[in-house]
Amino acid sequence: MRFTSEQRLDDGVLEREFTLGEIPGILWTPPAAPVPGMAPDPAPAPGPAPLILLGHPPLGLRKMYPRLVDRARRSAADGFASATIELPGSGDRPRQPAAEQARADLRRAIEAGEPVSDEIVDALVLPLVDQAVPEWQSALDALLALPEIGGPVGYSGGVISVGVRLAAVEHRVAAAVLFAGSFVPRAVFEEARRVTVPLHVLLQWDDEGNDRQAALDLFDAFGSEEKSLHAHLGGHTGVPQSAGDAAARFLTRHLR
Amino acid sequence: MRFTSEQRLDDGVLEREFTLGEIPGILWTPPAAPVPGMAPDPAPAPGPAPLILLGHPPLGLRKMYPRLVDRARRSAADGFASATIELPGSGDRPRQPAAEQARADLRRAIEAGEPVSDEIVDALVLPLVDQAVPEWQSALDALLALPEIGGPVGYSGGVISVGVRLAAVEHRVAAAVLFAGSFVPRAVFEEARRVTVPLHVLLQWDDEGNDRQAALDLFDAFGSEEKSLHAHLGGHTGVPQSAGDAAARFLTRHLR
Repeated sequence: MRFTSEQRLDDGVLEREFTLGEIPGILWTPPAAPVPGMAPDPAPAPGPAPLILLGHPPLGLRKMYPRLVDRARRSAADGFASATIELPGSGDRPRQPAAEQARADLRRAIEAGEPVSDEIVDALVLPLVDQAVPEWQSALDALLALPEIGGPVGYSGGVISVGVRLAAVEHRVAAAVLFAGSFVPRAVFEEARRVTVPLHVLLQWDDEGNDRQAALDLFDAFGSEEKSLHAHLGGHTGVPQSAGDAAARFLTRHLR
Repeated sequence: MRFTSEQRLDDGVLEREFTLGEIPGILWTPPAAPVPGMAPDPAPAPGPAPLILLGHPPLGLRKMYPRLVDRARRSAADGFASATIELPGSGDRPRQPAAEQARADLRRAIEAGEPVSDEIVDALVLPLVDQAVPEWQSALDALLALPEIGGPVGYSGGVISVGVRLAAVEHRVAAAVLFAGSFVPRAVFEEARRVTVPLHVLLQWDDEGNDRQAALDLFDAFGSEEKSLHAHLGGHTGVPQSAGDAAARFLTRHLR
């Protein structure tokens, strides 16, 4: 892990870009001491900060930056470090012709009003999950080796299949916020039964690109003893501010 | 409306029992000034307090008192007055033989593993709704005439069909927290489409006495542009503390 740039944001959050091999990423850490004029709520605990991994859709870190930095600032105000890495095939990382073919097939099926086949979903999502999850685990190795970061670790948002697989296989993830906003391959659905950490699942009730019943079935399948589903009226990008606040509160309850 | 008793609780909340004709009720109002050692969050606004109507299951006010007073204290800390009245057929109010017959039929159907027919649900719930809703409206008339209480009004909890009908017909109700925890007659389901106020709906995912799919369909039917569903793992009485907190925050957002 190599830091490539560093800047202090106006609220005192330290933002550092890094590379992990070929993979770019960003780490945000809360100010060590309260910044004058800012009242953190609740006050950050002293010592290493717990970490939240910020998931995101495969649109490239640069495009996602404004939303990611908002979430990172909010997390820092709650006393958390947060970090994210570029997904395979996104941003400046090498394209993946098979995934782009699957995306074209998906678009064609949706435009033709046809059901989206399991084959398309598998081709679109499984290679991404297979490659991304070990990368997030490597990032976790590197991040947890930093003295300013401690456990426990939360995962929040992004491609839900990545979150499900990560929560199922990575025992350092102690709680997860998942956004039921994209297709889930059958194989990942089965892995959901092995997830046991506390889950806070968001669902947009009228999400254009998401099958509501499949999302409810997935929620039902999770093996976690503590899980909750929060459905809000509106489309994919219409998650209300209050839902973000509630998700942040969930992570604070489980990671602090 | 006639006050029959008055006591100041240890957190400064004023609790007054009243009767409205033959119907007993309880009113809780927040302390006018902060009580030493108590930090209200957020600080109560000066002047008349907005009102939350506390719904409850038909088990009698006396039996429900511990849970009701907890909710009232929380509401008072948020700057709200809250009030409740006895449901028809509950507590010291005259029994309703038809409802008791319907309850026996329901128990028999459940014990026999038979589906609960629309006829049983109608007989159990419709007379209760038909009588209770005008009573809550009369209570609202009397409560809003008190100088210490102002608008807007919220409704929270209890028999969901009462909440649905009240939200559909009573335009002084500006927001409602509903608990999808009991059978809903078809006629009330249709009224749900006419509800337009912001809604925060709670659902216990494994509620023994509740049909999950019917609850999801009801949520879908509500006409409100702002509505959210919060499902938590567990049975009817397992609503977690954090869910109560989130519901209180919803009311604060919409009534303050």
